[in-house]
Amino acid sequence: MTSKMLKEIREQPRVLQRILDEEWGKVRDAARALRGADRHSVVIVARGTSDNAALYAKYLFEVLLGIPTALASPSVFTVYQAWMKFDKALVMGISQSGESKDVFETVRRAREFGARTVSLTNDESSPLAQVSEAHLCLRAGNEESVAATKTYTAELMLLYLLTIALRGEERPDASAKRLPEQARQVLEAEWRGTARYRYAEHLVVVSRGYNLATAKEAALKLMETAYMVAEAFSGADLKHGPIAMISKDFPVVAVIPPGKARASIKAMVENLSDRGAELVVIGEEGLTDGASASFVLPLSCPEELSPILYILPLQMLAHDLSCLRGLNPDAPRGLSKVTETW
Amino acid sequence: MTSKMLKEIREQPRVLQRILDEEWGKVRDAARALRGADRHSVVIVARGTSDNAALYAKYLFEVLLGIPTALASPSVFTVYQAWMKFDKALVMGISQSGESKDVFETVRRAREFGARTVSLTNDESSPLAQVSEAHLCLRAGNEESVAATKTYTAELMLLYLLTIALRGEERPDASAKRLPEQARQVLEAEWRGTARYRYAEHLVVVSRGYNLATAKEAALKLMETAYMVAEAFSGADLKHGPIAMISKDFPVVAVIPPGKARASIKAMVENLSDRGAELVVIGEEGLTDGASASFVLPLSCPEELSPILYILPLQMLAHDLSCLRGLNPDAPRGLSKVTETW
Repeated sequence: MTSKMLKEIREQPRVLQRILDEEWGKVRDAARALRGADRHSVVIVARGTSDNAALYAKYLFEVLLGIPTALASPSVFTVYQAWMKFDKALVMGISQSGESKDVFETVRRAREFGARTVSLTNDESSPLAQVSEAHLCLRAGNEESVAATKTYTAELMLLYLLTIALRGEERPDASAKRLPEQARQVLEAEWRGTARYRYAEHLVVVSRGYNLATAKEAALKLMETAYMVAEAFSGADLKHGPIAMISKDFPVVAVIPPGKARASIKAMVENLSDRGAELVVIGEEGLTDGASASFVLPLSCPEELSPILYILPLQMLAHDLSCLRGLNPDAPRGLSKVTETW
Repeated sequence: MTSKMLKEIREQPRVLQRILDEEWGKVRDAARALRGADRHSVVIVARGTSDNAALYAKYLFEVLLGIPTALASPSVFTVYQAWMKFDKALVMGISQSGESKDVFETVRRAREFGARTVSLTNDESSPLAQVSEAHLCLRAGNEESVAATKTYTAELMLLYLLTIALRGEERPDASAKRLPEQARQVLEAEWRGTARYRYAEHLVVVSRGYNLATAKEAALKLMETAYMVAEAFSGADLKHGPIAMISKDFPVVAVIPPGKARASIKAMVENLSDRGAELVVIGEEGLTDGASASFVLPLSCPEELSPILYILPLQMLAHDLSCLRGLNPDAPRGLSKVTETW
């Protein structure tokens, strides 16, 4: 029987297409409204998978728009009840369900404190959508799997489109338009990397830049569906201490993106290879020297869009490993679809 | 033979005292200069242990000063060469050595882009100290251990003093002045929690709020000196997925701070206890229900200062575990004192 998680992984090309076809107008309107607002910083509030999308957005907004972007700690508002100087900030809430109480409360209070607010949810009638000035819809259809997949890539796509709209683009670029078809190709490719991890207890996922979000989201999926102790690092952060724990046969997945971060990750992969790490590489052809296995992405796309494609084989890995271990990817131990935190 | 790491762990009470005695004047002068500058956000750039200090500062600046604070991704500047709208930002660099190239480059470029800049280093003649408008010295003496301990608590102390100086305080408060003596008491207390982890391969450290920095720094020390796969979470983030991996006998260290975050962590500890996790609690008397072991801090201090005390038993744990495993805490595999990243 096909799991809900696998069914939703496979829906992703259609969801990406739907966003391009139906949501661009709203994205452009939101961007027009926000562009006049003279904002000095962006603050993004999210949890779990949506927080990994927020990390992607931090790179988009900083690299492509030059605006300092912070990931909020909701406890500042919910636990410590702080006031915040938000009169020059844009505060963005991201939540698949739109029902996360702490994300809602942060955006609600931010608006009281003078922030401009925007939210991304999969439900336009959700509390988070209602409390924000502007709202963008993920258009992912009902997500039944506890482990979010299609709403994650939908969030990335919307965040990319919002970024280029804020930069003044009149329509989605050709690279963005190619993504639904490219996602389909990636999901059709064979991926035999799973069996090696049948008995692995831990794993490190490494990448950098835009794809640090990919590493973090891959680790999260492995923790919640395959119960593996998975930890994600940027290559630079790994070097500042944690790398000491990596010796012969330590399992590492390296996400080697195209573009400017590639050289940095490749240098880290050589370092890890010298330590005898058991390396699996996700990347383009020709990057797999020293790796025990690889998933080759047979297509190129700009680095800033690559997280939408590079997460796909890792979603499959988490799903397949969960099944291989006799677990049910649709029923992570003790989790429910809407997580309540405060 | 006493390791360098242990020697420096024990120096911490004296370093804290020295900062109180000798650095307050400079902290107040820096705060006066910065208070007039009309800044809308703070951006902190750091790596490794100093990045955990930066996380502590994010809570201080947001909760006590109400100013949105971001942790910088240096790759935005070093890899992607981005321009940034920094004319209303205060950019702070934190580096023990002051020689981290990417931290230096981020502060240097931030200043070009109009940011006010301040740095914290242990070396006033370092490149980072030189490139910043204002500089605060850790006064920790020469740090020889690769695993930073005394410079971490020195960073926390200076960041706290800077925060209260920015709030207009004329002198360090009584709670801050009590810290050197309290740190001495904590370091003298017996701590028998180590042996249980002799063969443990992984561990989760959980806390929240100000002490999320404590959890992250504890995990980092365990990774770099004892080669344990240690991962830190806020209680809220743990709930959004990773908690699925925690079942019977999974080792968890819970840092239960005093103050507003306590209730949230206690609820998480009950949840973990229900899952059968092997719990070790760091906290005050009476918090250890359901725990297999505990380190009791026999003294109280305000939550916002508690990270300076609560990290101490965890530094000892990492050190002792490294020795117990026959490793050398002073020679983490493949690390050097100054880590070069870009």
